[in-house]
Amino acid sequence: MPYMDYAAGCPIDERVVEAMVPYFKEPGNPSSVHSVGLKARNAVEEARQKVAELINANADEVIFTSGATESNNLAIIGYAMRNASKGKHIVTTAIEHISIINVCKYLQKNGFEVTYIPVDRYGIVSVDSIEEAIRDDTILVSVQHASSEIGTIQEIERIGEVVKSKNAAFHVDATASLGKIEVDVEKMNADLVTLSSNDIYGPRGVGGLYIRKGVKIQPIMLGGGQEFGLRGGTENVAGIVGFGKAAEIAKQEWRSEAERLAKMRDKMIDGILKAVEESYLNGHPEKRLPNNIAVRFNYVEGESILLSLDMEDIQASTGSACTSKTLQPSHVLMALGLKHEEAHGSVLFTLGRYSKEEDVDYVLEKLPGIVERLRMMSPLYRRR
Amino acid sequence: MPYMDYAAGCPIDERVVEAMVPYFKEPGNPSSVHSVGLKARNAVEEARQKVAELINANADEVIFTSGATESNNLAIIGYAMRNASKGKHIVTTAIEHISIINVCKYLQKNGFEVTYIPVDRYGIVSVDSIEEAIRDDTILVSVQHASSEIGTIQEIERIGEVVKSKNAAFHVDATASLGKIEVDVEKMNADLVTLSSNDIYGPRGVGGLYIRKGVKIQPIMLGGGQEFGLRGGTENVAGIVGFGKAAEIAKQEWRSEAERLAKMRDKMIDGILKAVEESYLNGHPEKRLPNNIAVRFNYVEGESILLSLDMEDIQASTGSACTSKTLQPSHVLMALGLKHEEAHGSVLFTLGRYSKEEDVDYVLEKLPGIVERLRMMSPLYRRR
Repeated sequence: MPYMDYAAGCPIDERVVEAMVPYFKEPGNPSSVHSVGLKARNAVEEARQKVAELINANADEVIFTSGATESNNLAIIGYAMRNASKGKHIVTTAIEHISIINVCKYLQKNGFEVTYIPVDRYGIVSVDSIEEAIRDDTILVSVQHASSEIGTIQEIERIGEVVKSKNAAFHVDATASLGKIEVDVEKMNADLVTLSSNDIYGPRGVGGLYIRKGVKIQPIMLGGGQEFGLRGGTENVAGIVGFGKAAEIAKQEWRSEAERLAKMRDKMIDGILKAVEESYLNGHPEKRLPNNIAVRFNYVEGESILLSLDMEDIQASTGSACTSKTLQPSHVLMALGLKHEEAHGSVLFTLGRYSKEEDVDYVLEKLPGIVERLRMMSPLYRRR
Repeated sequence: MPYMDYAAGCPIDERVVEAMVPYFKEPGNPSSVHSVGLKARNAVEEARQKVAELINANADEVIFTSGATESNNLAIIGYAMRNASKGKHIVTTAIEHISIINVCKYLQKNGFEVTYIPVDRYGIVSVDSIEEAIRDDTILVSVQHASSEIGTIQEIERIGEVVKSKNAAFHVDATASLGKIEVDVEKMNADLVTLSSNDIYGPRGVGGLYIRKGVKIQPIMLGGGQEFGLRGGTENVAGIVGFGKAAEIAKQEWRSEAERLAKMRDKMIDGILKAVEESYLNGHPEKRLPNNIAVRFNYVEGESILLSLDMEDIQASTGSACTSKTLQPSHVLMALGLKHEEAHGSVLFTLGRYSKEEDVDYVLEKLPGIVERLRMMSPLYRRR
């Protein structure tokens, strides 16, 4: 089964499962005052160290959450609420993940002002436009490192420099980039970085948030003071151990994995664009995640292509799974300046650790015929 | 190792692990539009049905969260914020879990008024005092079903009737009771019920919230509209499957398990109170969770007892693990009217699925000597 929807969900690496299994039997609560609790506490701290090492941070700058969506909520709501006395203006971009967009809308209803920076046709947000948007009352700038939906990688280090020079805090959503390209909180000058476990083949229900020492946020989940008082709730020890193991593996393997995936990505993009007329690449041709093949086809619906692909045992997506519940075209694709019908004709293939070159060959064999057949049924295509 | 700290953390049932393992390899995102996503979606919905069946609810009245703490936050903040136009008064009790207490304090800082009903020396909150506290502007009453810390079970059905008759919404924290005594949302007249996965031997990082049809709450985690739009973030499919399996097992086994545990509990309470002079039971002698042995010893510190017990490979607690980070005596024990030194002399043993009668015998063999030895070192004891 050529599963090519890694951006929507990844299987857990077998080595990660192995690391987790012993902790399923362990009843210890890291807050407990006995040896069984201590064992759990040590396991959590070891995992924290591993996640920190992957992003060039200190262990006490990483907290565990229930996933990237919670981390995005905590970073933005938590920072905005805690630092509202300094200003109530936030800068972000038009192509952020739906959780960021919805959090920003929520803050707008609660007295904050948000500027959404547009992007160019490749999905690049210009460093200058960020600089121009930052005002005296801007407290936070949130920019994704890379887009899972169109693959585009931002000039995040230059943006970080600008934000720092303007004395605003910088949040980076690294959900799509972690484990695929370098994520270094120092190089990025980031104050807050969202980290996903499942996107690096760790378990779901776990995520992380990097919080630079000295940066103050308010918790959004209140409880017993876990995670340095920033996130209540008993720690998901086995899940956290799994995330730690996934981070350790990612640190060792991401460079060679990225190289392997980029070759397959390029073969697939070239193959599709050559084999299917009126097909186009979404996102940037070079500044691009190594696993991302985002294409669009005129005269056909992406969703029809998905269903036909699925019948051939190929899984793909039309964009972010998190926004699949709406019939609206993706806000990310619209931000590129695509027309509605172009956005609707988009298909996203994302490769991963278990993708093989045969999978690419298989898709290249099946896809052109599917598009052709669907176009034959399309009145738009026949009338063209 | 006689682990007797099940209230702090439970191992995952082997049958639950078996149910989860196949989903670790499954990459499907329930929001994805293909067969792999559909498989994940079906697994989540099957688990939802199982959790609903355990509490006599409909499947579409249960949403999944990251744990009991999140469910408590979502229930109270989510209900209060959504229904603030109807009134800004909340009624709860003095012995709720720290997450509820902290959420109420947060709401108090944000324009809400909260009444904390005191309890009697057994930890029982009187139905009349709840009734008297409800005002015209009371929108929500939150009462725990049972206390993990002192074992006391509230007259939750009578409280539910009163709350309903006063047209307020009723939230029940069933974290400690689920799987140990009957939890029936209809009998309780509950509108919102907090459910924990790990407390019924499911995985951590997963919880549930029952939301009665028609009851409106506002999400606290914003994202892609998952969980009926009430909880953003990709579903933790394997974890949810595990919670469902744990609920299925709990439904089949809770009655016989409660009977078995209650016998051990009674043997242990009787044994301790007989063997150790000036030892007392915390909580109610009859209205009591079947797994809860909460005792206190004059002239000694609970924490010293814990450390000595741990050296004999016995794990216990001084109260809620979630409040262990503070040196303050437990707010629950203080609410019973205990003096500081009585609260500090408390030790909590909680039994569970893997507790054996030999464990009880072993504790009864070791504990009296430990208390005796510690008392010999206590100036208070010698001066008595």
